[in-house]
Amino acid sequence: MYASDSFRSLLKHAPRFDTPDYHLKQMIKTPGRLADFSSGLPGFFFDFSRQRLDREVIQNLKTLAQETKAREMFSRMAAGDRVNTTENRSALHTAARGFISPGLRPEDPRILYDMQAVARKISTFSKDIRNGTITGTSGQPFTDAVVVGIGGSYLGCEFVYKALQACHCPKINLHFLSNVDIDNFGQVTSRISPGTCLWIIVSKSYTTTETMANLAQVNAYLKRHKLLPQDHLVTITAKGSPGDDPANPVLASFHMFDFIGGRYSVSSAVGGVPLSLAFGYEVFERFLKGCGRMDRHALDAPVLENIPLMAALISIWNIQVLGYTAQAVIPYSSALSKLAPHVQQLYMESLGKGVDRNGKSLPCPAGSIIFGEPGTNAQHSFFQLAHQGPAFPVEFIGVLNPGYTKNQVTAKGVFNHQELWANLIAQTMALAEGQDHDLPARTFTGNRPSSLLVLDNLSAESLGMLLSFYEARTVFEGFISGINPFDQFGVELGKVLAATLRKQMAARNHDPSHEFDHPDTNAVFYLKALFKKRIDQ
Amino acid sequence: MYASDSFRSLLKHAPRFDTPDYHLKQMIKTPGRLADFSSGLPGFFFDFSRQRLDREVIQNLKTLAQETKAREMFSRMAAGDRVNTTENRSALHTAARGFISPGLRPEDPRILYDMQAVARKISTFSKDIRNGTITGTSGQPFTDAVVVGIGGSYLGCEFVYKALQACHCPKINLHFLSNVDIDNFGQVTSRISPGTCLWIIVSKSYTTTETMANLAQVNAYLKRHKLLPQDHLVTITAKGSPGDDPANPVLASFHMFDFIGGRYSVSSAVGGVPLSLAFGYEVFERFLKGCGRMDRHALDAPVLENIPLMAALISIWNIQVLGYTAQAVIPYSSALSKLAPHVQQLYMESLGKGVDRNGKSLPCPAGSIIFGEPGTNAQHSFFQLAHQGPAFPVEFIGVLNPGYTKNQVTAKGVFNHQELWANLIAQTMALAEGQDHDLPARTFTGNRPSSLLVLDNLSAESLGMLLSFYEARTVFEGFISGINPFDQFGVELGKVLAATLRKQMAARNHDPSHEFDHPDTNAVFYLKALFKKRIDQ
Repeated sequence: MYASDSFRSLLKHAPRFDTPDYHLKQMIKTPGRLADFSSGLPGFFFDFSRQRLDREVIQNLKTLAQETKAREMFSRMAAGDRVNTTENRSALHTAARGFISPGLRPEDPRILYDMQAVARKISTFSKDIRNGTITGTSGQPFTDAVVVGIGGSYLGCEFVYKALQACHCPKINLHFLSNVDIDNFGQVTSRISPGTCLWIIVSKSYTTTETMANLAQVNAYLKRHKLLPQDHLVTITAKGSPGDDPANPVLASFHMFDFIGGRYSVSSAVGGVPLSLAFGYEVFERFLKGCGRMDRHALDAPVLENIPLMAALISIWNIQVLGYTAQAVIPYSSALSKLAPHVQQLYMESLGKGVDRNGKSLPCPAGSIIFGEPGTNAQHSFFQLAHQGPAFPVEFIGVLNPGYTKNQVTAKGVFNHQELWANLIAQTMALAEGQDHDLPARTFTGNRPSSLLVLDNLSAESLGMLLSFYEARTVFEGFISGINPFDQFGVELGKVLAATLRKQMAARNHDPSHEFDHPDTNAVFYLKALFKKRIDQ
Repeated sequence: MYASDSFRSLLKHAPRFDTPDYHLKQMIKTPGRLADFSSGLPGFFFDFSRQRLDREVIQNLKTLAQETKAREMFSRMAAGDRVNTTENRSALHTAARGFISPGLRPEDPRILYDMQAVARKISTFSKDIRNGTITGTSGQPFTDAVVVGIGGSYLGCEFVYKALQACHCPKINLHFLSNVDIDNFGQVTSRISPGTCLWIIVSKSYTTTETMANLAQVNAYLKRHKLLPQDHLVTITAKGSPGDDPANPVLASFHMFDFIGGRYSVSSAVGGVPLSLAFGYEVFERFLKGCGRMDRHALDAPVLENIPLMAALISIWNIQVLGYTAQAVIPYSSALSKLAPHVQQLYMESLGKGVDRNGKSLPCPAGSIIFGEPGTNAQHSFFQLAHQGPAFPVEFIGVLNPGYTKNQVTAKGVFNHQELWANLIAQTMALAEGQDHDLPARTFTGNRPSSLLVLDNLSAESLGMLLSFYEARTVFEGFISGINPFDQFGVELGKVLAATLRKQMAARNHDPSHEFDHPDTNAVFYLKALFKKRIDQ
């Protein structure tokens, strides 16, 4: 990308946007601005009219997408090419939605067959659990399920679980045991009843340290309550992993595939099993349908109409050209309260890289920080800085129809959902336009860019589209920037160093007279404190 | 600050830290580095040995604190001076902890008396609710309480509520209704039983739009369930506000004071009432004691030993001199899962300003983005970017003793809490040192700064120290940078613009033939969509 004519041209455009004529408060006055700077699908609308760009920049971004072959890369990804080059793997999360690219050519023709078999198994299993055909050791039907997994093994599922509750009441309540912190285990067990709880262990390799440590607690817990793993444990793991070994019997095991990475796995068994238990497989299927609809759009729509591709290009313009260092994701919907943590992982783990696909150092950082909280809450939290501190682009999300539709009253003449929207629209205006004032403390410089995504509702289909939008946006941004959005070698060093410390702790657990032996003096200091349970100063 | 000799001198130091000799992997080898670059109180330890600084910088920062009279400002604040200059108010959150500076001279000698009266009332009221002396309309004892408030009216309370659960089991379960989103109301009401639920309305002015809109829903809900406000509503509000009006009878009303801002209000009735209901007043009192201990330290300790002051100086060095644009707060403790959202508000709303105390534009941004999730979760989410993407300083928090101490087993020879610590220590090492590798994708540049705060435990006292640490750190940073950390004019423009939109909605609710009349064409487009419940493209 960096050597392309279109990227160089974008860099030349940038200074113009620091001049008064290109202040957002001027640009938004252009007639037809919204129509020209927006794109939509039925039920899904993307408004980028309050981004700091004009037609020329858009044309230039379009050329960038063409020069970097963004859509071809997406198409190759959906067809099963090994686009995860460093790990020599495909990235076929789109195939999990039953979305089969005309050109899908996975190396093994059994892949689709295997994926469909997993889906059928989820359908049957979740039905049997939900109607009480399958019970726990004590014969009681299940009421709760704990997802034991970390990172991509739970963040996306948690987001969708919370969001679906706006329109659906879970029959099986889900809980998430992610952290190796024993207090996380304590929190979760205080909320469940052992005899009616299912434990879903999610780990592709079945070696993830945190998840295996929590599994050890779970097994001890089951034993203490005289419950059998073959009645209460479910595994979601790679075929042939220790979690798929008949020598360790479990109630059911569902396969993960090496061509779907953790942060892209919500639509696989990782999301499928827990979400189908909670809401029924048919709801999960509708969610997949929504994902598939956005996948199809991402694959087929020309650049200027392609919502995730345009969002990716705008993100590149904001971060790599205009120089913003963070982006906020602000859904004006409580149901989407876990969207930002999911997108945070998806985006920062995919794009937070130092090198391109060929191992060459990037001339400027490709990824940025993503953070966010729901609005209007965010307005009463960090939006002071968004308006008067260092600027960052915001992606707002609005939902036209809330989930809750029962008895409601008005305040100041409007319903709560209308008040929410009044604030949402007002924020996009305030950030863009700013306001002059005699008092400097009450002056707003404005010219702060934002986008607005609008969903018709919080149905399973809409949520599927939203999930797939962020996945497609992320991979497009990786493809255009020339980096691999599917690997994550940056998490490895910490694991290696943690092993050296674990070894010291294990030695001391085994032999209380063991003297800590580690080259890092800080580490020895903290090892001593941890075993003494206090710091000697 | 910017004109001071010490700040100019700091700017001259900065380039040195980009040279190989000053890479963190070199600096941490200095003998005695940890002892020289750390500071502690009983039960609270602050290690800044992995920050990118040396003795010269530290001495320089010390001079900066002296030149900007940071400690004198803190002392003036605690004494009741009107340090909130733009609003001509004191900032006396420290007085809420019963911590009375020797020089406290609030204008009205009744202030302390009034505060103590509120505290006594909380003590009595919470006892009566918890032991069932006071019941709801139907005569059943209360089991749940919903805090209805937004921003500073709930974020800090929510953080402490979640954190205290590591060591204490709530007798009254708390819920938080913050967002004006009707789905937030739907979520909360799905979790409570009307007859046993208390509603705590928190708004100083009792005019906060979101809170009043939610109060309207609550009143309708109570009426529908034939419950009386005088049995089920509690208000925390300013004396004489509409929430303190005997014409609108409530079960109890507790006063807020104009000299304690929302984001600094956890230790006032805002946190006191709900937390005392949940855990008992004696637990809240211990929390206050912890706050007071840190206040005392912030006031008395010389610069180099003063933990919050050193943390503030390091933050200024990182953001305003080295140029980092964001900071992460990563507690290795599930119990502290809501610390980052609280600190995010506290810090970004306090320091996200464009002008200094005198209304002069700041030459460089004073505040930064703060974000975070608990570790090890964050390692499996955005830490890929922390290690290989654009760098940001991290504040790690470790707790030597977890809350949960029941049956535990080992995995890989260590207990979960030890595994957590192995990871925590490893992350500080990995970020600082990095690692060379033949493969660029596996190379870690290192030199990424972090601090480590260590708490002995999760007791109420420790949590009080932690809360007060962040408050003191924030105000110190404001005092040194020369900005007012107590106002928030940046949230006003959005409110004004929202009112113009609300007016249009109310007119349409009143008269379905009302044609929207608003100068912003985007706004009209969205108003139409909201009332049609879909976007016509």
